[in-house]
Amino acid sequence: MSAPDPVVGDLTEGEVLTRILGRLAPSRALLGPGDDAAVLAAPGGRIVASVDTLVHGPDFRLAWSSAKDLGWKAAAVNLADIAAMGARPTALLVALAMPDHTPVSFVEGIADGLRAGCDELAPGAAVEGGDLTVSDTLTIAVTALGVLDGTAPVTRRGARAGDVVAVCGELGKAARGLAILFDRFRVDGRPVAVASLTEADAALVGAQLRPRPPIAAGAVAASHGATAMMDVSDGLALDAGRLARASDVTLELQTDAIGPEPGIALAGGEDHALLATFPAAVGPAPGFRVIGRVGAAGDHPLLVDGKPYDGYGGWDPYRDWDAVSG
Amino acid sequence: MSAPDPVVGDLTEGEVLTRILGRLAPSRALLGPGDDAAVLAAPGGRIVASVDTLVHGPDFRLAWSSAKDLGWKAAAVNLADIAAMGARPTALLVALAMPDHTPVSFVEGIADGLRAGCDELAPGAAVEGGDLTVSDTLTIAVTALGVLDGTAPVTRRGARAGDVVAVCGELGKAARGLAILFDRFRVDGRPVAVASLTEADAALVGAQLRPRPPIAAGAVAASHGATAMMDVSDGLALDAGRLARASDVTLELQTDAIGPEPGIALAGGEDHALLATFPAAVGPAPGFRVIGRVGAAGDHPLLVDGKPYDGYGGWDPYRDWDAVSG
Repeated sequence: MSAPDPVVGDLTEGEVLTRILGRLAPSRALLGPGDDAAVLAAPGGRIVASVDTLVHGPDFRLAWSSAKDLGWKAAAVNLADIAAMGARPTALLVALAMPDHTPVSFVEGIADGLRAGCDELAPGAAVEGGDLTVSDTLTIAVTALGVLDGTAPVTRRGARAGDVVAVCGELGKAARGLAILFDRFRVDGRPVAVASLTEADAALVGAQLRPRPPIAAGAVAASHGATAMMDVSDGLALDAGRLARASDVTLELQTDAIGPEPGIALAGGEDHALLATFPAAVGPAPGFRVIGRVGAAGDHPLLVDGKPYDGYGGWDPYRDWDAVSG
Repeated sequence: MSAPDPVVGDLTEGEVLTRILGRLAPSRALLGPGDDAAVLAAPGGRIVASVDTLVHGPDFRLAWSSAKDLGWKAAAVNLADIAAMGARPTALLVALAMPDHTPVSFVEGIADGLRAGCDELAPGAAVEGGDLTVSDTLTIAVTALGVLDGTAPVTRRGARAGDVVAVCGELGKAARGLAILFDRFRVDGRPVAVASLTEADAALVGAQLRPRPPIAAGAVAASHGATAMMDVSDGLALDAGRLARASDVTLELQTDAIGPEPGIALAGGEDHALLATFPAAVGPAPGFRVIGRVGAAGDHPLLVDGKPYDGYGGWDPYRDWDAVSG
């Protein structure tokens, strides 16, 4: 325990926990970490809850991500799910399963990243509970909780023909960053030295490793009158198709409105932009840009420039993950 | 996908999810599974939240546990954390990470066990959200949420000198069941055929594989006036010591009150009994039995029959887990 860089197997669970708690933001809960459960305020008598997991291999690689990157990303992707309901995130619960040879400094880095992600993306949200356990596979499962400030939750089911389709946030940057990482990795077969990247490429890699979903825009969209909303985690095409099917409508997107690289935006996820629909008379909420309109249900849930979208539809963990080739 | 027993790698995430959702109880939430997040009722404006993880290896073995056992246990241990705050569980969120060679029937068994555990231990609670991902290590992280029906949360910190110490539920049965499993496993080196066990041993193994924490007793204790409470997950001695330190008191237990095998009860966890303190004038809540009293803080947080407890103090995942010997 006096080693310069101890591993979690050298410490008791309580000692590891103490190191983590010392790095998190002060609790904002009615009762924070340290008991059997946290007690959180739920003004309005409702709470919004979601869980998402990052697993070493399918979801991240330690060759690319620092511990702080991982903590940040685990916070960001879960905060985005709460924002996508039109809610304001208030708390994270973090289940961290890790090999006993994991350096304690790595765990501390995850805690730093969780804190930084909450502080920068969703001020007011903090880690309010969690669980530590041993596993051969480093796994971070985060539950995010949030509150609805007087608005109804915005589901995927409320889009109506005639609405405008709009997004807030980046589309495709994280996918471009991932492509850079894969490309470099295949060339060298070893970790990518981010310092060797051009500034532009480094920004794209940063978008992959530390995505910045527009968390506050979720509640803004809800109070503006969004009829449907979700976060784009698996690519605009796949997720727009999901929203269209859930609402029983057609989403009709225009590539010239999507941006300069619509193909990447349509196929690539992980920026966690917010995709929402608004009544045409109301128009998009501040920060959102219109990328299309909602039509009546037809043979295809998604039309791009008037044609059925037939490109690669995004990431599915069971179809797409291959432990050998990555 | 037409295979008689497909594995999750044969199906899309959506197809696996559909199979799971079909086996869960109908949603009781304001908005259940299928969107970015669930929306749950939080009457009284507060919610109680906890997370706990079961990992293949340290926390369970597929040689011993069926899929339904695992689902049950994942529900039970998390429901117990909510009960231990004096709250009534309302919802579970389940993050399931599994190898892509996992049979779909196994995933369905986990869903069945989650449902059965909720239905039998905490009627009114149901799985209201979750996440599926691929991992080399089968991992089930469950977040449990609950509500306080007008009472204050019961923490570990409220025990006062003069209170009685009481428990509700089993102490040591799960540990005895685990000893039977280890013993048989060491003799044969292969899975334990539960049918070959005596009825008494099978009951103990059942207590290990499908614990039955007294979930409803948590809210009963809260309304009865419990001053402190926690669930016994790591052995009575270790957990009583934690409660004593949190409350800055001494817990003074009597072995003749603990039961016929106090050594096992003190050292063995995993029954998830509720340990609580009550003012002497009020006495224990219905269903609780007195096992000692609370004294002023002294040199030792835990006295057993008047002496400092120096036995093995319970399970710590970092200190005790050894992937080779188990």
